[in-house]
Amino acid sequence: MSERGLLIVFSGPSGVGKGTVRKAIFESKGHDFEYSVSMTTRQKRPGEVDGVDYYFRTREEFEAMIEAGEMLEYAEYVGNYYGTPLNYVNKTLDSGKDVFLEIEVQGAGQVKEKAPDGVFIFLTPPDLNELRERIVGRGTDSPEVIDERMRVAQDEIEMMALYDYAVVNDEVPLAVKRVKDIIASEHFRVERVIGKYRKMLTDFNNQEKI
Amino acid sequence: MSERGLLIVFSGPSGVGKGTVRKAIFESKGHDFEYSVSMTTRQKRPGEVDGVDYYFRTREEFEAMIEAGEMLEYAEYVGNYYGTPLNYVNKTLDSGKDVFLEIEVQGAGQVKEKAPDGVFIFLTPPDLNELRERIVGRGTDSPEVIDERMRVAQDEIEMMALYDYAVVNDEVPLAVKRVKDIIASEHFRVERVIGKYRKMLTDFNNQEKI
Repeated sequence: MSERGLLIVFSGPSGVGKGTVRKAIFESKGHDFEYSVSMTTRQKRPGEVDGVDYYFRTREEFEAMIEAGEMLEYAEYVGNYYGTPLNYVNKTLDSGKDVFLEIEVQGAGQVKEKAPDGVFIFLTPPDLNELRERIVGRGTDSPEVIDERMRVAQDEIEMMALYDYAVVNDEVPLAVKRVKDIIASEHFRVERVIGKYRKMLTDFNNQEKI
Repeated sequence: MSERGLLIVFSGPSGVGKGTVRKAIFESKGHDFEYSVSMTTRQKRPGEVDGVDYYFRTREEFEAMIEAGEMLEYAEYVGNYYGTPLNYVNKTLDSGKDVFLEIEVQGAGQVKEKAPDGVFIFLTPPDLNELRERIVGRGTDSPEVIDERMRVAQDEIEMMALYDYAVVNDEVPLAVKRVKDIIASEHFRVERVIGKYRKMLTDFNNQEKI
């Protein structure tokens, strides 16, 4: 019996090291989920391959897909679109495989609305653990600098509230292990497996009555 | 900053191998949670130590604790009480350590009411995965036998619905790994960590205003 795959949404504040951790996860042993290649309107750089690094599309093509509701999420950065085509994600999930999205927090909010049963993992900067030290600094910072740090920390924490898990990126191998453990454990959540058992009993009951 | 420990409730249908898996978890490396010793009114057997195997108490002492609301859960089996004293569990959780309870499903239901934020793990028999085969058998079973198996399977599935995770006990080392991964991952759940960050910011704001 084929179970639907998990949609894993991996995000966090910019500069936290999402790409590094994601690459290390996909280079590690013992993972069996698929990476969802993003779509973009930016120029292909030397060495990049369409369908591997990104799906490279024109602005018109991208906007047509947005119009047609064919993007799971998208955002615009410095004049270019970046986003996740819905079709690949759905096809892969339906085949029973987990799909791993590494996206910006803006996009993660859109996915949360469309697919609330996804597994939302927020990567936090190592020093969020040392929030106090970071904010107060070494006692030599101006009140303005401290206030700005407070504001950034507050924003990060409020972003985090939309997610299921918060993983500290203190050391890449540790962050990789945490993310993989979380994904493995999510497969054992009762709400994900109980339907399978119930369906089996219902099917069997119906069959018996025929 | 000391975070409250997790209450881990490990249960499942009788005969599934809860005790074997629990022992293997506590003998394994890399766990740091405390086992909550149960209390009982049954006779101490040769070699058993009070406070290690069980807290051995008289029926009067046990009933006085029930009356005083000092039991997290309890049940009666073949004329003896078995249960979990609340005091040890709370003290250990308050000290920041995780507490691991291995209890019967009857007791787990009581804990769920009192501590819904616990991590509830249900150990399932290996062959729940092969439910159909188990129910239909080899085609030689009477309809009565098949009906009885259906009823048992249905009961197990409905029990499972109260839990957060369902772990298959196909091989003890695999079940051990799954349970440990689940406990590790639960520590990263946003609802468990975000309060810590928010409190830090609030404390800092208040301090600044003094």
